[in-house]
Amino acid sequence: MKKIRAAVVGYGNIGQYAIEALEAADDFEIAGVVRRNPSADDAQIAYPVVADIRELGLVDVALLCSPTRAIRTVAAEILALGINTVDSFDVHSEIVSLKQFLDPIACAGKSTAIISAGWDPGSDSIVRTLMQAMAPKGLTYTNFGPGMSMGHSVAAKAIPGVKDALSMTIPMGTGVHRRMVYVELSEGYDIGTVTAQLKADSYFSSDETHVRQVDSVDALKDVGHGVSMIHKGVSGKTHNQLFEYTMRINNPALTSQFMVSAARAACRQQPGAYSVIEIPPVNFLPGEVNNWIHKLV
Amino acid sequence: MKKIRAAVVGYGNIGQYAIEALEAADDFEIAGVVRRNPSADDAQIAYPVVADIRELGLVDVALLCSPTRAIRTVAAEILALGINTVDSFDVHSEIVSLKQFLDPIACAGKSTAIISAGWDPGSDSIVRTLMQAMAPKGLTYTNFGPGMSMGHSVAAKAIPGVKDALSMTIPMGTGVHRRMVYVELSEGYDIGTVTAQLKADSYFSSDETHVRQVDSVDALKDVGHGVSMIHKGVSGKTHNQLFEYTMRINNPALTSQFMVSAARAACRQQPGAYSVIEIPPVNFLPGEVNNWIHKLV
Repeated sequence: MKKIRAAVVGYGNIGQYAIEALEAADDFEIAGVVRRNPSADDAQIAYPVVADIRELGLVDVALLCSPTRAIRTVAAEILALGINTVDSFDVHSEIVSLKQFLDPIACAGKSTAIISAGWDPGSDSIVRTLMQAMAPKGLTYTNFGPGMSMGHSVAAKAIPGVKDALSMTIPMGTGVHRRMVYVELSEGYDIGTVTAQLKADSYFSSDETHVRQVDSVDALKDVGHGVSMIHKGVSGKTHNQLFEYTMRINNPALTSQFMVSAARAACRQQPGAYSVIEIPPVNFLPGEVNNWIHKLV
Repeated sequence: MKKIRAAVVGYGNIGQYAIEALEAADDFEIAGVVRRNPSADDAQIAYPVVADIRELGLVDVALLCSPTRAIRTVAAEILALGINTVDSFDVHSEIVSLKQFLDPIACAGKSTAIISAGWDPGSDSIVRTLMQAMAPKGLTYTNFGPGMSMGHSVAAKAIPGVKDALSMTIPMGTGVHRRMVYVELSEGYDIGTVTAQLKADSYFSSDETHVRQVDSVDALKDVGHGVSMIHKGVSGKTHNQLFEYTMRINNPALTSQFMVSAARAACRQQPGAYSVIEIPPVNFLPGEVNNWIHKLV
């Protein structure tokens, strides 16, 4: 069977895990890695490293492992070349706008984009959709953690006097979260002042936030994360239908695995830009549909 | 907005809950109920009751609430008339064959069948598919209950001397189940003999089974049910990714609600027969796709 040729665009944390997920998937082959600024340690990468995806020959799908803020531009360029894309764009409020921007570009390029295909947004979004279909009236709570929040850690690092920081998201139930922020201070700063400034920051001001000074932030780093989604609602006219979905996972490993599954789906979809809830779930899996119906339905 | 006109075929337990779920859904209107043998209490039904679906005028979709064994014939007849169908056919090993049988009939009739759209097979199947996409290597266990098993209760009732029976499915973990069977005996039979015969029946012989004699089976009836699905697996090359999905639900209420959600999806699909894992999840929900992307993704 012909393999799907995939390129990995960006070689940070997610890009490195994406290579592993592609290597573990029998139906893919790796065309190479695209980096804006090739670096000396590229020699350690077992695949061609290029600055422009066109140097990799035929590519069926590109896994965009660039920062969220770069996705719009990078996806547009690659879709216009007729190459499918998958990303894990994670600003929930801008997903519709990203889709509307990329859809005409993909249609013109006869390519497919599957957007926001990490775990939240991503696989969690599919679970929320399913809960809505099973009990249309009611409440859904998404509780994150315990796990490290990249966005909050970066915001904490931007406070004057913070040399390094790690912000843990702690679920307190009903979608309420506590922030535990571990900071390493630069010399001459005191923890009281830093704490006050951090708590006033818009990333932290609406949540219960605790700041702890530590000797080494690096010693605390662990990419484990989790989710508990709870839905209580009404099926038809019957109340008190209870649903819960939980996971405890390595964050970048799940993100990149789900992107690889979505890359497969992208190669089966009509041209256009799609969110994950618009994709038939079996298309995330390799091989014959009827085999999966037999095993999973 | 034009409403979807739905017929309910069969008026047992699921059919009655299906009427409720349709009444609760703003985008549907009820064309009527189809019963093979109209009965005296049909006068209590608030909708037209007919023996042939053609008497109901235009119908967009039929919810097939007939017993599983009747689905193949009933679906084929209705699909050939150009009417979409949804069923909750529940013999896992025969779903591919049902799809292959109905697909050409639906294509010829320019209609759509969504098959096995209850909760297992049904919504659970979508969760299993998602777990497979998130961590392709590993084990998934589906643990049912505690809740009443219709199939096992019917099998118990068929044992000589059993006037009435209720078989509860008790989850023991790792997909292993205990059967707690409550029986009312006919006069002249003893519990020892009945127990021995029941335990030898193929429905019970491979599970741990306990039989208890009771005065009234009816006094024990409760349509609550549950599931716990556990997946532990590997994302890319990262092991120990942990996922769990649980629900505690009214069984016929969830089955019929999910059939109504699937009925909506059936009206959006190209002609043919589909299992639920082949349907874009957002199609189960009413209204505009972008609204749901904004709310759920």
